Amino acid sequence: MTDASSGDGPDRPVVVDLHSSCTTQEVESGEYYHATVNGVVDYGVFVDLSEHVSGLVHESTFDGEQDLAVDDDVVVKLTEVRENGDLSFELAALDDYETVEREHSYDRIDAETVGDHVGETVHVEGEVVQIKQTGGPTIFRVRDETSAVPCTAFEAAGVRAHPVVEVGDLVHVKGDVEEREGTYQIEVTEIDVLDGETAADVAGRLDAALAERAEPIDVDPLVDWPALEGMLPELRSVARTLRRAVLEGRPIRMRHHADGDGMAASVPVQYALTQFIEDAHQDADAARHLLKRLPSKAPYYEMEDATRDLNFALGDRARHGQKLPLLLMLDNGSTEEDTPAYKALNNYDIPIVVVDHHHPDPDAVDPLVEEHVNPYLHGEDYRITTGMLCVELARMIYPGLTEELEHVPAVAGLSDRSKADEMTDYLELAREAGYDDEFLQNISEALDYEAYMLRYDPGTQLINDILNVNGDEERHRELVPFLANRAAEDVAEQLDAATPHVEHERVANGANLYRIDVENHAHRFTYPAPGKTTGEIHDRKVEETGEPVITIGYGPDFAVLRSDGVRLDIPTMVEELNEELPGAGVSGGGHLVVGSIRFVPGMREEVLDALIEKMAEAELDEELHTAPKR
Amino acid sequence: MTDASSGDGPDRPVVVDLHSSCTTQEVESGEYYHATVNGVVDYGVFVDLSEHVSGLVHESTFDGEQDLAVDDDVVVKLTEVRENGDLSFELAALDDYETVEREHSYDRIDAETVGDHVGETVHVEGEVVQIKQTGGPTIFRVRDETSAVPCTAFEAAGVRAHPVVEVGDLVHVKGDVEEREGTYQIEVTEIDVLDGETAADVAGRLDAALAERAEPIDVDPLVDWPALEGMLPELRSVARTLRRAVLEGRPIRMRHHADGDGMAASVPVQYALTQFIEDAHQDADAARHLLKRLPSKAPYYEMEDATRDLNFALGDRARHGQKLPLLLMLDNGSTEEDTPAYKALNNYDIPIVVVDHHHPDPDAVDPLVEEHVNPYLHGEDYRITTGMLCVELARMIYPGLTEELEHVPAVAGLSDRSKADEMTDYLELAREAGYDDEFLQNISEALDYEAYMLRYDPGTQLINDILNVNGDEERHRELVPFLANRAAEDVAEQLDAATPHVEHERVANGANLYRIDVENHAHRFTYPAPGKTTGEIHDRKVEETGEPVITIGYGPDFAVLRSDGVRLDIPTMVEELNEELPGAGVSGGGHLVVGSIRFVPGMREEVLDALIEKMAEAELDEELHTAPKR
Amino acid sequence: MTDASSGDGPDRPVVVDLHSSCTTQEVESGEYYHATVNGVVDYGVFVDLSEHVSGLVHESTFDGEQDLAVDDDVVVKLTEVRENGDLSFELAALDDYETVEREHSYDRIDAETVGDHVGETVHVEGEVVQIKQTGGPTIFRVRDETSAVPCTAFEAAGVRAHPVVEVGDLVHVKGDVEEREGTYQIEVTEIDVLDGETAADVAGRLDAALAERAEPIDVDPLVDWPALEGMLPELRSVARTLRRAVLEGRPIRMRHHADGDGMAASVPVQYALTQFIEDAHQDADAARHLLKRLPSKAPYYEMEDATRDLNFALGDRARHGQKLPLLLMLDNGSTEEDTPAYKALNNYDIPIVVVDHHHPDPDAVDPLVEEHVNPYLHGEDYRITTGMLCVELARMIYPGLTEELEHVPAVAGLSDRSKADEMTDYLELAREAGYDDEFLQNISEALDYEAYMLRYDPGTQLINDILNVNGDEERHRELVPFLANRAAEDVAEQLDAATPHVEHERVANGANLYRIDVENHAHRFTYPAPGKTTGEIHDRKVEETGEPVITIGYGPDFAVLRSDGVRLDIPTMVEELNEELPGAGVSGGGHLVVGSIRFVPGMREEVLDALIEKMAEAELDEELHTAPKR
Repeated sequence: MTDASSGDGPDRPVVVDLHSSCTTQEVESGEYYHATVNGVVDYGVFVDLSEHVSGLVHESTFDGEQDLAVDDDVVVKLTEVRENGDLSFELAALDDYETVEREHSYDRIDAETVGDHVGETVHVEGEVVQIKQTGGPTIFRVRDETSAVPCTAFEAAGVRAHPVVEVGDLVHVKGDVEEREGTYQIEVTEIDVLDGETAADVAGRLDAALAERAEPIDVDPLVDWPALEGMLPELRSVARTLRRAVLEGRPIRMRHHADGDGMAASVPVQYALTQFIEDAHQDADAARHLLKRLPSKAPYYEMEDATRDLNFALGDRARHGQKLPLLLMLDNGSTEEDTPAYKALNNYDIPIVVVDHHHPDPDAVDPLVEEHVNPYLHGEDYRITTGMLCVELARMIYPGLTEELEHVPAVAGLSDRSKADEMTDYLELAREAGYDDEFLQNISEALDYEAYMLRYDPGTQLINDILNVNGDEERHRELVPFLANRAAEDVAEQLDAATPHVEHERVANGANLYRIDVENHAHRFTYPAPGKTTGEIHDRKVEETGEPVITIGYGPDFAVLRSDGVRLDIPTMVEELNEELPGAGVSGGGHLVVGSIRFVPGMREEVLDALIEKMAEAELDEELHTAPKR
Repeated sequence: MTDASSGDGPDRPVVVDLHSSCTTQEVESGEYYHATVNGVVDYGVFVDLSEHVSGLVHESTFDGEQDLAVDDDVVVKLTEVRENGDLSFELAALDDYETVEREHSYDRIDAETVGDHVGETVHVEGEVVQIKQTGGPTIFRVRDETSAVPCTAFEAAGVRAHPVVEVGDLVHVKGDVEEREGTYQIEVTEIDVLDGETAADVAGRLDAALAERAEPIDVDPLVDWPALEGMLPELRSVARTLRRAVLEGRPIRMRHHADGDGMAASVPVQYALTQFIEDAHQDADAARHLLKRLPSKAPYYEMEDATRDLNFALGDRARHGQKLPLLLMLDNGSTEEDTPAYKALNNYDIPIVVVDHHHPDPDAVDPLVEEHVNPYLHGEDYRITTGMLCVELARMIYPGLTEELEHVPAVAGLSDRSKADEMTDYLELAREAGYDDEFLQNISEALDYEAYMLRYDPGTQLINDILNVNGDEERHRELVPFLANRAAEDVAEQLDAATPHVEHERVANGANLYRIDVENHAHRFTYPAPGKTTGEIHDRKVEETGEPVITIGYGPDFAVLRSDGVRLDIPTMVEELNEELPGAGVSGGGHLVVGSIRFVPGMREEVLDALIEKMAEAELDEELHTAPKR
Repeated sequence: MTDASSGDGPDRPVVVDLHSSCTTQEVESGEYYHATVNGVVDYGVFVDLSEHVSGLVHESTFDGEQDLAVDDDVVVKLTEVRENGDLSFELAALDDYETVEREHSYDRIDAETVGDHVGETVHVEGEVVQIKQTGGPTIFRVRDETSAVPCTAFEAAGVRAHPVVEVGDLVHVKGDVEEREGTYQIEVTEIDVLDGETAADVAGRLDAALAERAEPIDVDPLVDWPALEGMLPELRSVARTLRRAVLEGRPIRMRHHADGDGMAASVPVQYALTQFIEDAHQDADAARHLLKRLPSKAPYYEMEDATRDLNFALGDRARHGQKLPLLLMLDNGSTEEDTPAYKALNNYDIPIVVVDHHHPDPDAVDPLVEEHVNPYLHGEDYRITTGMLCVELARMIYPGLTEELEHVPAVAGLSDRSKADEMTDYLELAREAGYDDEFLQNISEALDYEAYMLRYDPGTQLINDILNVNGDEERHRELVPFLANRAAEDVAEQLDAATPHVEHERVANGANLYRIDVENHAHRFTYPAPGKTTGEIHDRKVEETGEPVITIGYGPDFAVLRSDGVRLDIPTMVEELNEELPGAGVSGGGHLVVGSIRFVPGMREEVLDALIEKMAEAELDEELHTAPKR
């Protein structure tokens, strides 16, 4: 009641303006208050002083001539607090007064200290991050700057309590702390949605605390590489965004390229986020609810995948009261083909973060995503693989992972055939961690093989064991050679069938062109798939000839292209074909010299002929090198 | 004990016939009882007076010569109730007596009032609607005329208590009311399966209450349309059946056509049922357990779907003790093709209800289903779309939905190209609700597009948002144009590929015949699918020519048929082809002038040639009109 | 303290060697102990007497010159137990002494008696069979020789308590018995991992008890058949292994051939195991967690299936702390094609048990599996079907099933066309159980049909009803003729399309060769599938001609082979084709005279021509007989 005595001069009366959350604890007989008329009856008017304080101004206390109507602002004086709690007021006609604001006063505790207040009534202020309706009470998960605490409110069995309170609201909760099977919770007696200054205060505190806790770990990159160095600030920003999402209780849905680099990128990030979630959340299964890693079928984010993700997210929101997720695209996501799906998510304000090293289209992508990290945007290219970037990202997300991840960039680089000079450093780092080059290569092959066998199931534990990240070292050492060997046998069998049917010609520019009908001269629906089969044939031909080589593996409606020593520009060729061959429905892309295209089956001959003609005109490269797979 | 003193005359002794549920509360020393011998020992015989009352007739009290055997009926007199509760009887040899029945007497409470009896012992009578075995107690869900209440009985951890009690039994439960996390339950001390008159009484009470609560809402149809008016009584009957299923705790499984009209039909019904379930059931997730909406892949109810549904239902029954479901077919289900699947469900006595507007085969369908609503059965046709019917149905199931559904019939009508004059009224209604014609058309396109992208997942929240039924208005306004636009772009791309390969000829009757190989001249496994692609080509040709048009889109083993201005009868043509071309395996159907057929790939040329010959002979229509899609 | 007084002579002092689990309960002032120095400080040395007993030897009590270092072994005398529990020792310099070992003493109770000790502190010794982390406490499931009991330990909400304790450890648990919703559990106050002799003792007790409880039921085979008799010891061993897995809490994953014999084999075993699990485990849903039956898509164990199984098992281990499973292969699994998948599981030490009757390759299979039962390994052949074997196996696993399974071997035999003389006995047995031959045949057809419709979902309840094993007899009698009839109609429709296109020629050896292009002259993706379609055509041709018949049903990359009256050796033919036709990628197999092969589509003509040439040279059989399907 200190405000009541404050004031500029002794002669100006004080009129109290109660905050909407004030209760009768904050009023006292004899004081003046700002009030609003909320009802007019025969015998007077009812006035509201705050959401919880109201009472009657009896008509006997004012000149009936005064024409009071609902919503009129008045000044009243509290004359009596009756035994039953009812308040009586009289109208006050003050010429001059001073207004003093009064807050609802309570001693707020930090959410992380609830355990020290079992059995007591406490006050907590924070953001509602989840609302879960159970068969009994409604559970509001309220996060303040220290932690999140479940607050249970019971209206009737299975009935949503306090329906005005929504996820995202800033609230004041009053309730009794209980311990239930080792978890603390507040049994709600009062929950108010905050607004105005109080809300701004709480938001400020939360934001400041979040910003501090979201700050990434400071790490030096694993190898000394100026090109990579320049990308670290952006990776730090991504790490911050992801840590913040975890702290805010926002689920993260990772989509990644279903190949070696894609897994070398996503698994470390998954590991780091899992650790961070376990630190930041009390529930044992928070990581399962908040993080999902999903390989993508296509090398871009298909509309179907986006629809499935959205459907899943909306279902989770409905069932568990979760926030909509953040989408994290890894080793995919930089191209124009991803944008329709991004737009679909944008309709639901789902934030998108991309880390990729495929040839990007920033004009199309950037307006749709929150962050977009790609070496091409720094004048670099695919040689900085996504796995290399993401190992740094993982180290920024959670401390102490360096040792467990040192071999991963080498696997990523081998998987995507990175020609970076720094591969030497990465291989050396892996060697020091106990991985010889052959074993690293085997990891890459094993990942590729299991990606196929898992058919787009994340297969977390298996993949962790193969990559030896958060896995079982002993299984790892057994599994990798076994799977690499299985993969090699399957490749050999496929090549036994295909090789006799590979057709050769030397085209205009002098390059060797090899063609193989992978639909008719390879086993279908089995490992290796057409892209890999084509690549394996190509690699052998490059080695055999030591000359420029183009290899085309084609099926009824697609062709896989691989080239070495030839300066192709596949994206441009696709564009040209599309114009020159109306009705062929050509689409596709990939890297400059490696990619795949699709067309309608009835136009295959025309498309392949036109394609080869273009390839035959391409300039040859001085230096032969094997390009990355897609 | 009033019965004991009743009787015709003072001189005839009264013999009490105890109801099987009677306990020792209902016996008194000195009274006579009907009893049955259940054991013969050296020192006498044991007799049963009821399930719970038995005792010894010592041999000293009767002439040992009397040769009593097990199952003999006797009259006994209760001589003593010992301290330990044992009863002693003596045989009675009455020449003449009057029999009086005596019920087990208890004060029954209504299930909905259990909350007022916490801590007390109560009696409830009702039907067992679910039996769930937990790791601890067995939970019997007992429904009386007012509500359903969980009754827990504990035998041993995870062991089924009272194994004689089954779902569907009418029972008397005695137990203590407890409150557990806001839910009331009865801890069972006694549970008896009722029979005879008592059971009949309870059944009668339940039935009467159910019938009253199942009664649909009285609504006036949204538009004035005599054709529709005539179908309202049947829709009321369907509404009653569905409300009754909800009240009885029977799950409802909805299967519907995966297109615009199918969704405009099923989503409002899903919404209304969800609301009604939430009112009628206490558990927060009852709607999730009791209602499932599933789009069908085929335009009829496939045996595979029925097998999956049955498998799912049997699993739910085994795991959760649920009843087998009711199948609700919407915008599908009227044809002979549905009947094998119906027969499979009939084997398990699963009730089936159909609301459809496809050309029906009542002779095949009606004997297998409980209700069958179809405009053709009222002399009307496809112009009354299922969506129009189901909006009325939804309004009958739950009150207060009118405003939220006013735009839906227009979407349904546009989706199925209804030529009804009343479309004007529906469009006007939608316009008043803030939907211009273009936006309605966009909703229809968006539904079609998402149906494809969701691949037969119901996608409830997404579809609700698109249709703006129980959805988010703001998302709706953003999503619909975005998706309609995506769909239009995908259609344009498909047509770019296909159009140059459309073949034209003018057939005998003067109609334009267009043929397109949709397998070879359209992208596969992408939106739009062959049916939609064919339809889009057809629409453009109708517009271009202004003349009668037949369009055939064919693949290896199917053909999609569209026609305008030609009087086709596709069902008959299919029949004829099947006879004329043995070994072609022709099947299929649809509407008269629009449909699809299947055949074996090796006979495609023969089938298409014969088909076209028939089409070339068809009469032309005076008036051109676009027919509904299937 | 009896040990303290034991000794050879009165003059040799006794030095006690405390077991590592001993506590201060087991020490007494004045006694000598073996100890180890664990720290050296200014004022003396700290010594450990056991894991829980340690104290200070003050330097005042020994000659500082004595140069004690960490890990030195010393003999000390306990001089004082202080009020705060600290122990004071002095160094002892004994010339001669006797060492006596002392165990930590507690009164161990049997896990199955915990219910008699509610509210008491108890000790239990056993193996940790599952560790489940909840949002609150960690739950260790500890199994001793009598039962398994959940032991809950709380560190912090959702935090793993006692992280050193792992699944498989032998432990001593001290704690208080509580009853929670009818289930007993021990609230852990102490949990120690046992080692050395104590561990060996516990392991011995557990093993002995397990061995006894795992012992199979003694049964006489259903029919008198010496060939079968010889296989019983191996089946007993399999029954023992499976019972033991159940008792150890190891999940069992069954994979079986998705046909009639495969289901007649696996369903009885599933039934028997379910019953046994329910007896051996307290949780109501143990059977759901511990047993899964899955039909295999291919007629062998594919790498993809193994990957999925492994992924699933690792996920279950991570989420529920379950052991990795045992794989039980039924009516599949004897061939070389299964071995890559077996090797994948071997990497995770997953035990494999095989019961099959397909032509086995024991050299490849046996090193990878624990048990391998196959009639060919006993000089018998496919006529002893897996279903016949598994009915005996099921009877050995659980008592009292005989009557419910008597009709099953006949179904198995009919499904696989067993030509065993003993089929007469099996059919007679079934007849006595109320099954005439036609109904048995119908069961076989119904199983085949539903296997297709369920698409590799186990469909437990449906299949149980069809086979009438743990099913509903009434449904069974309705379902079987309905489904058999549906199957027959679908077969008839398929044959209507296919038969006109069957090509006939008489080959060199005089046999009739029939060829049918099942891709182009049968409906695709519908029942019956190509294998069954080919078989049905073949059966009709055998019947029509009464002569030797070979039938080939081919698609783009496969051919199904059926023969009667011709001595084929398909496995050898496949090997030869593979050598003769490089680039054709021929693989496959099956039985000698019945099987299927795969090849690359582009080489189909060459493969079929070469195949027919080989068949034309095969010797004819004197006696015609229909061979088993695959």
